[in-house]
Amino acid sequence: MTLPEQHLLTTTLSAITPTNAKMRQTARQRLDQLAIPHWALGRMMNLAEDLAAITSSMQPNIKRKSIAVMAGDHGIVAAGVSKFPQAVTMEMVRNFVNEAASINALARQVGAQVTVVDAGVAGDLSELAKSDKIISKKVALGTANFAEGPAMSREQAIQSIEAGIEVAEQLADSTDLFGTGDMGIGNTSPSSAIIATLCDRSIADVTGRGTGLDDEALNAKVATLEKALALNQPDPRDGIDVLAKVGGFEIGAIAGLILGAAAQHKPVMIDGIISTAGALIAASLSPASVEYMIAGHCSVEQGHRIALECLGKQPLLDLDLRLGEGTGGAIAMNLVEAAVAILTEVATFEEAAVSQPKEI
Amino acid sequence: MTLPEQHLLTTTLSAITPTNAKMRQTARQRLDQLAIPHWALGRMMNLAEDLAAITSSMQPNIKRKSIAVMAGDHGIVAAGVSKFPQAVTMEMVRNFVNEAASINALARQVGAQVTVVDAGVAGDLSELAKSDKIISKKVALGTANFAEGPAMSREQAIQSIEAGIEVAEQLADSTDLFGTGDMGIGNTSPSSAIIATLCDRSIADVTGRGTGLDDEALNAKVATLEKALALNQPDPRDGIDVLAKVGGFEIGAIAGLILGAAAQHKPVMIDGIISTAGALIAASLSPASVEYMIAGHCSVEQGHRIALECLGKQPLLDLDLRLGEGTGGAIAMNLVEAAVAILTEVATFEEAAVSQPKEI
Repeated sequence: MTLPEQHLLTTTLSAITPTNAKMRQTARQRLDQLAIPHWALGRMMNLAEDLAAITSSMQPNIKRKSIAVMAGDHGIVAAGVSKFPQAVTMEMVRNFVNEAASINALARQVGAQVTVVDAGVAGDLSELAKSDKIISKKVALGTANFAEGPAMSREQAIQSIEAGIEVAEQLADSTDLFGTGDMGIGNTSPSSAIIATLCDRSIADVTGRGTGLDDEALNAKVATLEKALALNQPDPRDGIDVLAKVGGFEIGAIAGLILGAAAQHKPVMIDGIISTAGALIAASLSPASVEYMIAGHCSVEQGHRIALECLGKQPLLDLDLRLGEGTGGAIAMNLVEAAVAILTEVATFEEAAVSQPKEI
Repeated sequence: MTLPEQHLLTTTLSAITPTNAKMRQTARQRLDQLAIPHWALGRMMNLAEDLAAITSSMQPNIKRKSIAVMAGDHGIVAAGVSKFPQAVTMEMVRNFVNEAASINALARQVGAQVTVVDAGVAGDLSELAKSDKIISKKVALGTANFAEGPAMSREQAIQSIEAGIEVAEQLADSTDLFGTGDMGIGNTSPSSAIIATLCDRSIADVTGRGTGLDDEALNAKVATLEKALALNQPDPRDGIDVLAKVGGFEIGAIAGLILGAAAQHKPVMIDGIISTAGALIAASLSPASVEYMIAGHCSVEQGHRIALECLGKQPLLDLDLRLGEGTGGAIAMNLVEAAVAILTEVATFEEAAVSQPKEI
């Protein structure tokens, strides 16, 4: 992979270091001694370990939560890959701003703030940006149709990633735990194309019904994406090339948010298939960034489980979600809180004066 | 099954009616119209429907949460079915009272109160009861060893169920959402015996390692339980007979708590395999009570998944937990809050002025 020379992306990548192995060990030592049958809180204890390693602390700070919902449009909707009209991307941005969408409700429940970012919506949202309702990082008015050529230029791909890094930096002072979110009609198509490329799988393996395609429309979507990959030939060794040829602006921004969080040594909750496509781009640029990612859930959307396995991540939840917006990640943030409670509030056998198991 | 004639159990059973089908339909109508791809929040939406039906409300009240941790001891530990000494039951009760156990930490995280109930601990906890640190409903100083005869008398079985009903009544004024919890060294053994009997499965199918048995000890546990079932011949058509012959006092109290919650038309979160054994007893006495149960998680303990399937319940979480105490249910209470947020705070297409899908 050719590393980009741009300043922000380069400095961000060089700031990402592996998580704290010593603190992980310290956490494990305490968790091993809790007054419960050994490791009886299962994956919650693994999560607690991860959080100690990520934050370099036995009291991981995850109180202030920010979910960044990255919005962008997709030229490939012209090929009929979605049931919803493209205008819905903009309408949903307004719905987020009005705090009436699913992500608003679920973020509120877990005490997270929602930040909406225009990474490349095909319409004018400048009045929302002027009034600070959204952050404008618009790269362009939607991507080009990657069924006919690259979705964006290499420069735009880098710009979209840097947009996400800048959002992470802007939120840094008010955020202990980041969450990714997405909005973009048609964006399961670039996600499938990215996953197929970076996980070396066929399009058919990783392409699902999105917002609700029937069999015929699904087959047409698969055929469109197969042709698009054959046309564009994205290079799987170069995440920026993959993003440029078959990606989306909001997917680049998600990758950037993840890289920015990792550079800050803070955990970042990954939502559904679109967010995980962004996570794969981030991982291709910085393998160490994967250690900062928490997989919130596994969606119904075919390809998400494959993408998570490819990242080496086991999702916390499996609730048949297929919405995006950051919703699955928001729900999973509750589990991050619970994991921290296990690490910080549960007594050991010795502290609690509880007898240890005998050998039988 | 012969219905008991005791007053409290009889009146409780007769107060349990099916949940509100009309409110379920009203909830579904709203959820169908939310400004998301249809049913894209998956099982969270099914949970939202359930909560509307249980509470007969489009604004389900689940704010005040109470987890009752039922404690009891088991004569069958004499047969070597657990790695932990029996004294740990009492030690853990003190740990709960000191608010230093896992259930305390996880209940705190979700804003639930913890109530500890002595349903039949083999030791003197009267000073904790006198100072109102625990509720004493002690049926006896632990069950008899059901490898050698019935665990308890039929009268004691009814007494333990009524203990749970009384706890539900005592907590009624401060509780919108109940949670079940258990503490009792050896209590996966009666749970497996109950599940095998009521779900018509072999002991080997439903018996696991409990707090951490090795292969040899697991085989011995299976053999012990097989002999115990052959000796006691519990009647699968009579839940009280099953509880009396191979159950436990805390399992009876859990069944009672569930019946009490259902009689109050309030949701009750079911924790792990011991709680689910209690739920099976409750279901055998009142099939309608199942509609008030929410399955919090599926544990590692073999037999739990079978018991949940037998109840017709899909668990919310699957996190390799195997602790009990109510911990898995506590974590899942966060998802109940999230489901209510979806029902009550998310705008419909019309409310949000978002375009609906076209047919393609």
